[in-house]
Amino acid sequence: MRIFVAQLNPIVGNLQSNTGKIIETIYQAKKKKADIVLFPEMAICGYPPEDLVLYSTFIDEMQAKLQEIAKASDNIMVVVGLVRKNPTGMGKLLYNSAAVIIDTKIVGFKDKTLLPTYDVFNESRYFEEGEEQKVFHYKDKNIGVMICEDTWQHAKGVEQVHYKRDPIQEIAPLKPDVLVSISASPYYFMKKDNRLKIFAPCASFLKCPFIWCNQVGGNDSLIFDGHSLYINENEELIQLAKGFEEDTLIIDLEKKEKAVSFPDHPLEDLYQALVLGVKDYFAKQGFSTAVIGLSGGVDSALVACIAKDALGSENLLGVSMPSRFTSLASMEDARALAENLNISLKEVPIDHLFQQYLDLLSPLFHGYPPDATEENLQARIRGMVLMAISNKLGYLVLSTGNKSEMAIGYSTLYGDLCGGLGIINDVSKTKVYELCRLLNKSEEVIPQNIIEREPSAELKANQKDQDTLPDYAILDAILEGYVEGHMSSQVIANKYDLKEKFVEEMIHKIHLAEYKRRQSPPGLRVTKKAFSKGRVFPIVQKWA
Amino acid sequence: MRIFVAQLNPIVGNLQSNTGKIIETIYQAKKKKADIVLFPEMAICGYPPEDLVLYSTFIDEMQAKLQEIAKASDNIMVVVGLVRKNPTGMGKLLYNSAAVIIDTKIVGFKDKTLLPTYDVFNESRYFEEGEEQKVFHYKDKNIGVMICEDTWQHAKGVEQVHYKRDPIQEIAPLKPDVLVSISASPYYFMKKDNRLKIFAPCASFLKCPFIWCNQVGGNDSLIFDGHSLYINENEELIQLAKGFEEDTLIIDLEKKEKAVSFPDHPLEDLYQALVLGVKDYFAKQGFSTAVIGLSGGVDSALVACIAKDALGSENLLGVSMPSRFTSLASMEDARALAENLNISLKEVPIDHLFQQYLDLLSPLFHGYPPDATEENLQARIRGMVLMAISNKLGYLVLSTGNKSEMAIGYSTLYGDLCGGLGIINDVSKTKVYELCRLLNKSEEVIPQNIIEREPSAELKANQKDQDTLPDYAILDAILEGYVEGHMSSQVIANKYDLKEKFVEEMIHKIHLAEYKRRQSPPGLRVTKKAFSKGRVFPIVQKWA
Repeated sequence: MRIFVAQLNPIVGNLQSNTGKIIETIYQAKKKKADIVLFPEMAICGYPPEDLVLYSTFIDEMQAKLQEIAKASDNIMVVVGLVRKNPTGMGKLLYNSAAVIIDTKIVGFKDKTLLPTYDVFNESRYFEEGEEQKVFHYKDKNIGVMICEDTWQHAKGVEQVHYKRDPIQEIAPLKPDVLVSISASPYYFMKKDNRLKIFAPCASFLKCPFIWCNQVGGNDSLIFDGHSLYINENEELIQLAKGFEEDTLIIDLEKKEKAVSFPDHPLEDLYQALVLGVKDYFAKQGFSTAVIGLSGGVDSALVACIAKDALGSENLLGVSMPSRFTSLASMEDARALAENLNISLKEVPIDHLFQQYLDLLSPLFHGYPPDATEENLQARIRGMVLMAISNKLGYLVLSTGNKSEMAIGYSTLYGDLCGGLGIINDVSKTKVYELCRLLNKSEEVIPQNIIEREPSAELKANQKDQDTLPDYAILDAILEGYVEGHMSSQVIANKYDLKEKFVEEMIHKIHLAEYKRRQSPPGLRVTKKAFSKGRVFPIVQKWA
Repeated sequence: MRIFVAQLNPIVGNLQSNTGKIIETIYQAKKKKADIVLFPEMAICGYPPEDLVLYSTFIDEMQAKLQEIAKASDNIMVVVGLVRKNPTGMGKLLYNSAAVIIDTKIVGFKDKTLLPTYDVFNESRYFEEGEEQKVFHYKDKNIGVMICEDTWQHAKGVEQVHYKRDPIQEIAPLKPDVLVSISASPYYFMKKDNRLKIFAPCASFLKCPFIWCNQVGGNDSLIFDGHSLYINENEELIQLAKGFEEDTLIIDLEKKEKAVSFPDHPLEDLYQALVLGVKDYFAKQGFSTAVIGLSGGVDSALVACIAKDALGSENLLGVSMPSRFTSLASMEDARALAENLNISLKEVPIDHLFQQYLDLLSPLFHGYPPDATEENLQARIRGMVLMAISNKLGYLVLSTGNKSEMAIGYSTLYGDLCGGLGIINDVSKTKVYELCRLLNKSEEVIPQNIIEREPSAELKANQKDQDTLPDYAILDAILEGYVEGHMSSQVIANKYDLKEKFVEEMIHKIHLAEYKRRQSPPGLRVTKKAFSKGRVFPIVQKWA
């Protein structure tokens, strides 16, 4: 039996183009003499469709697309993900389903049993839990079908919930000869490794091959990494699809194959994820050009590299916007970077405008000493210049704030926090440096000065980040403990040998900056817990 | 038996102050010779605590507070809402519970059975469903205890889900003598009326009084209206607590009382809701002063009235920021409004700055005709001036965009869309006018000119809203149909006798503006479906 795994990159809501791609792939699979072809979870609508599924016309149109797909499925079995109405009239109105088509007939649906509702997942908002586990009989084999989370309870892979049901346990009496799982499992740092630990025990427990078809591509904040795979009943990884691009696997269950090794380069994966996130955010929206403020600092340098790899040098415009506090070195570094990346650079000096604001506001501010207000003015003028370029010339503004700054509010709302997409919103300053060094491994892409100079916002004289912030290594450790690990200040203080009062202050700052994050650009999620939809916090609260 | 209903306004996360208030109220209830005192759902932590509950120290501290409350509960029965750990080790890690204390002993917990997970509610993210219905025996009576949503299935009051369980049905065999329901039920336009239809059948079905204790107060976007109530077994409303403020009911179950009428003034309720939302957003965060851009238009006029009623004239600063396109009439109207409201008004002309930007950008924009770029520049300069005042003087900026503009993207990101709180984000233009007329009912608070003049953004010469937008009555009808009603373009076109293609265009505009809404200030939710946490949409999607 030959199984074709179609790791596709759908566009959310574009039922037409997704269906076209699915049908095209079915033809390909038939050419390759496949018996079964697998598509990702919700392949017809793309994952996550969010509240689009609350429109019944959306669900009806999806059902019509399924009919088209069925028509194209002669002499083959197709497993394809979609959303369908819950016909029972009880519970939630929809199911997250896998439609099973055999030789043009829709022979049944397997509805997702375990519905992730934590972090970035919100499936209980829409879907009723599928009651039954199912195998579908085809060409003398029992094909067990599952959807994503269904396979995660068996090895207790989910931290946030211990599901009462284990679909792997439940399907065992049905004796599947092979288990296929269609999925939309988003990337985060090192998650790939985790998956193998979760899936392998399913294969050995059921004593059958486990084939996993994942979505690939960026959809808003979420980046789906692909890495579809085939594990045999001995828990050996036999095939692994590419990461961060569309790919196919052709699996011959009868053929004995050697185990393949599991590539281990987490930092390269992270970089690729960011590039894909930018690429798809633009392409799927129909944008092709971007503008970025180049300060001569390390964050904008990294974002420029990512954007160049995603969009091409010719589609990227850098803008340098010096004020009285900008050092010559920064300006030179920005120029050198633009040259290395082969991107255009415009210089728009903002000091004159800055002075105009100071003059205009001086009657109102008489007697008040300079403070963050004047710093914010500069950041906001820069934001306005970039947005004007965006409005007039159609470039999308790339935001360059990193996760450490986002956490602590070391950024200006409507200033450096403006833009269409926050490329490194979820990359800590520590990781920013690691990625820069990775980029410079074989040649100097980012001028070494940019990496070595002490970080500074250059919004007042002789300013350094570390005047107001703790060392980034310490801040990032607290961040990881508190935001990703949900640890208490006491546990964090003990773990990193810090004063508890200091950790509490940092946590308080994280909470205070919630109002800024709420209005900042959507960012690409690349850690287990990003400041995005996956972290739901009140702005007004008085706990910490 | 005397039941004391404590309609409290907690601060989210402030376990200390909430517990203090609860204990204080228990003393009051004892003084009034109450047998039972009821507090709202999650009264100890305030609703909704969101991801704070993912911190186990938060849950532990709440448990400690419960012990303090128990100690203060001698000779009385207390029902108080909190979050507690799920001790079973299966399913979600927490319960949304009502603790029942009798004479200082915690005698048990009733865990919420129906967990709303739709619109602004996200309870399945955190909580496991409570299995059992419970009555607690006290002073020869069986007291049935439920939490909010538990009572909504019986009369099929929830559109988004038909729960498989009906706790009202389930508790019937336990023969409650009275049913108490503790709740945190947020306001939306006309919801109050709906509640009576949901609760009354519970009372008559169980043949016992139904007592409902609701939270009051604004927490971020959500406004809880209070309106706690007592319905007898004949479905008559016997007592109704005040709306939009803390209140108490003292209910004597043995006393025969006449039914009271149900006040019906939805527009006044809406206005009060907005005032409370502003008041609590400021007070709970420790802010007292606000700044608002007064354009002479109807939106900023309404927001100024709301803010004045919430914060007091002395805490409100108006700023008029004319450019070359601002009419004299608008400036005069802004002055007249400020005078009527007795608030200070500063004039900060922005035209000189506007010209500076034009000059600075002209080399980049050579050959491009004027477009929205120049309009956005003016809006953003105004935003910057307000934010500078905020940064320097500590005033919070009030954002004045209405729901119709938010829907269609008729607003400038980082311009008029800047601010700490979007007061009328969820109020359509139609309702804006209705509220203005309500305010002017007995005397002219808002200068009549402001209400009568044709709406204009005044960002270019002779501009009128209706140059680019359809009539607001039509736009608002489409909005209600599509956003609140999830209707298809076809249904909307038929309902309002519009061309379907035109409705589709408007819907497409609503989707296109998603990126602006994502970065706009959090707004007060006052309709069934606001552009806030209750509407979860992808930015990049190609359905509509």
